[in-house]
Amino acid sequence: MRLHIPVSLRWSDLDAYQHVNNVEMFGLLQEARITAFWKHDDAEEPWPTAVIETGPGAPSHTFVAHQEIEYLRPLAYTRTPVRVELWIGKIGGASLDVCYELHDGAPRFERLAPTTGDEPYVRAVTTIVLVDAGTGKPRRISAEERTAWEGIVEEPLKFRRR
Amino acid sequence: MRLHIPVSLRWSDLDAYQHVNNVEMFGLLQEARITAFWKHDDAEEPWPTAVIETGPGAPSHTFVAHQEIEYLRPLAYTRTPVRVELWIGKIGGASLDVCYELHDGAPRFERLAPTTGDEPYVRAVTTIVLVDAGTGKPRRISAEERTAWEGIVEEPLKFRRR
Amino acid sequence: MRLHIPVSLRWSDLDAYQHVNNVEMFGLLQEARITAFWKHDDAEEPWPTAVIETGPGAPSHTFVAHQEIEYLRPLAYTRTPVRVELWIGKIGGASLDVCYELHDGAPRFERLAPTTGDEPYVRAVTTIVLVDAGTGKPRRISAEERTAWEGIVEEPLKFRRR
Amino acid sequence: MRLHIPVSLRWSDLDAYQHVNNVEMFGLLQEARITAFWKHDDAEEPWPTAVIETGPGAPSHTFVAHQEIEYLRPLAYTRTPVRVELWIGKIGGASLDVCYELHDGAPRFERLAPTTGDEPYVRAVTTIVLVDAGTGKPRRISAEERTAWEGIVEEPLKFRRR
Repeated sequence: MRLHIPVSLRWSDLDAYQHVNNVEMFGLLQEARITAFWKHDDAEEPWPTAVIETGPGAPSHTFVAHQEIEYLRPLAYTRTPVRVELWIGKIGGASLDVCYELHDGAPRFERLAPTTGDEPYVRAVTTIVLVDAGTGKPRRISAEERTAWEGIVEEPLKFRRR
Repeated sequence: MRLHIPVSLRWSDLDAYQHVNNVEMFGLLQEARITAFWKHDDAEEPWPTAVIETGPGAPSHTFVAHQEIEYLRPLAYTRTPVRVELWIGKIGGASLDVCYELHDGAPRFERLAPTTGDEPYVRAVTTIVLVDAGTGKPRRISAEERTAWEGIVEEPLKFRRR
Repeated sequence: MRLHIPVSLRWSDLDAYQHVNNVEMFGLLQEARITAFWKHDDAEEPWPTAVIETGPGAPSHTFVAHQEIEYLRPLAYTRTPVRVELWIGKIGGASLDVCYELHDGAPRFERLAPTTGDEPYVRAVTTIVLVDAGTGKPRRISAEERTAWEGIVEEPLKFRRR
Repeated sequence: MRLHIPVSLRWSDLDAYQHVNNVEMFGLLQEARITAFWKHDDAEEPWPTAVIETGPGAPSHTFVAHQEIEYLRPLAYTRTPVRVELWIGKIGGASLDVCYELHDGAPRFERLAPTTGDEPYVRAVTTIVLVDAGTGKPRRISAEERTAWEGIVEEPLKFRRR
């Protein structure tokens, strides 16, 4: 299963070619990843994966180690938030590969669902490393975290172009 | 009456001091203004004020001529979209003064409502000029536009610090 | 006299209308202000005004309280850094009004010079408040700071449109 | 040989962790790529590779098809522009792989030089496709372009983490 996360576009995401800029795509995916993985007091109900406590005083934070993205078609400005399908392609000892597809949104959708199989605008993978806030060093992923995440582990994304 | 417009924060709106950056505040207000005033095919239902057609081929666009802002207290990251109260302080011949207050959001709120009177994070005014897309010159505000906007005309915002 | 500060544009400062976005203008001015007022280890030679130590552990930081801007003409992308003329319009007890005009750049220019008197792209004022990092409260501007800044005090900027 | 391109950081590139944000890294590389490959009236002297005419009315533009990046260590704010080493890892029929390493800058450096071999902050590759502005379709890379670029063709960058 995948998380289906709405992310609002901003008109300022457009570049001079009047499409969402290639750099901003990583910004949209970053916001989806934060929604999925960070605990936050302000959230009405937590996302299933939200087990990493962050912020000043929190025991952990994350470090982005690697990213890869494939742009399949241009995205114009839309008021309906786009839908980021997010899943975990691999859980390592201290890292995880977060996979995404960015799709057209809809007024409402389920938080946890299979893919629609539609052609996405972009497909991407981010490798994040969990870091102990005290030591600044990578730290082991806990059993609690693995359990929280196992429901959204799927086949890793494969890119067409290498 | 005022429009109450939800705007989603992004974690990337924070600066190194861990609050929404003073520049980004204008970005949030820009998104609220676009929501209020631009017609867009994609909108489920238009906002009451949305009478300016924009985009390639549209007869009009707008030019930001002047802005003023007052920062009252710092805004931390929140998942609940903030609420921008937006009204028109003055309609001129070819320009209008858009006033805003940025407040804490809530899961749901009315689109058109009086102010709550709460202390805002920022208060701001943008003077926008309507421009004829063909000539690139300012153009008169139409009777249709005045009618569409009159329900959200209120006293202009006054700043404490000058 | 005014500081003449070069600021590099980025292509990403353009919006879908292919000009530097009105919000980004505040970003450019923010970078000029930081160049002028922040001490930084990395600077080859400090700017005359650079007396505020910042960063973790520094005794002070600043808070932006108010901003006002007037847009006079659109700015297209250019590789030559633009020139921000920066001066102080007023020094208060704990605050100062930083005035700016944004002009076309040139390959080389003096750091401290009178205005050229050319028509700027934008004119703006930022009121910044000096804050004691320990207490989080505004703190008095010191005699040392007044001395450092007096050479760039000029008449406050006046706006056409109010 | 590689191009050595200075890119100015902005304080706003920092995120709440006080380092240049992982998304902004792509923004910095985008600016370096534009410097290298776009002809621009405003440039004092063109970069060796600058043979793609862009902008309204230009015969070509480019489309970013794929990007990959590896983050090796965090980058703090610095006033000295960083140095992007840029080379071409592969020239295809209608596309090219632009490789980059982001390094500490220096007050002055040569535009065309071998690598210093220092440990970079990030290493990345962008695949760009050349597009005919009239048809919107990919177009063949010309002999003139190949000649202009051959001096900066080097071994493609290899990533540690896959």
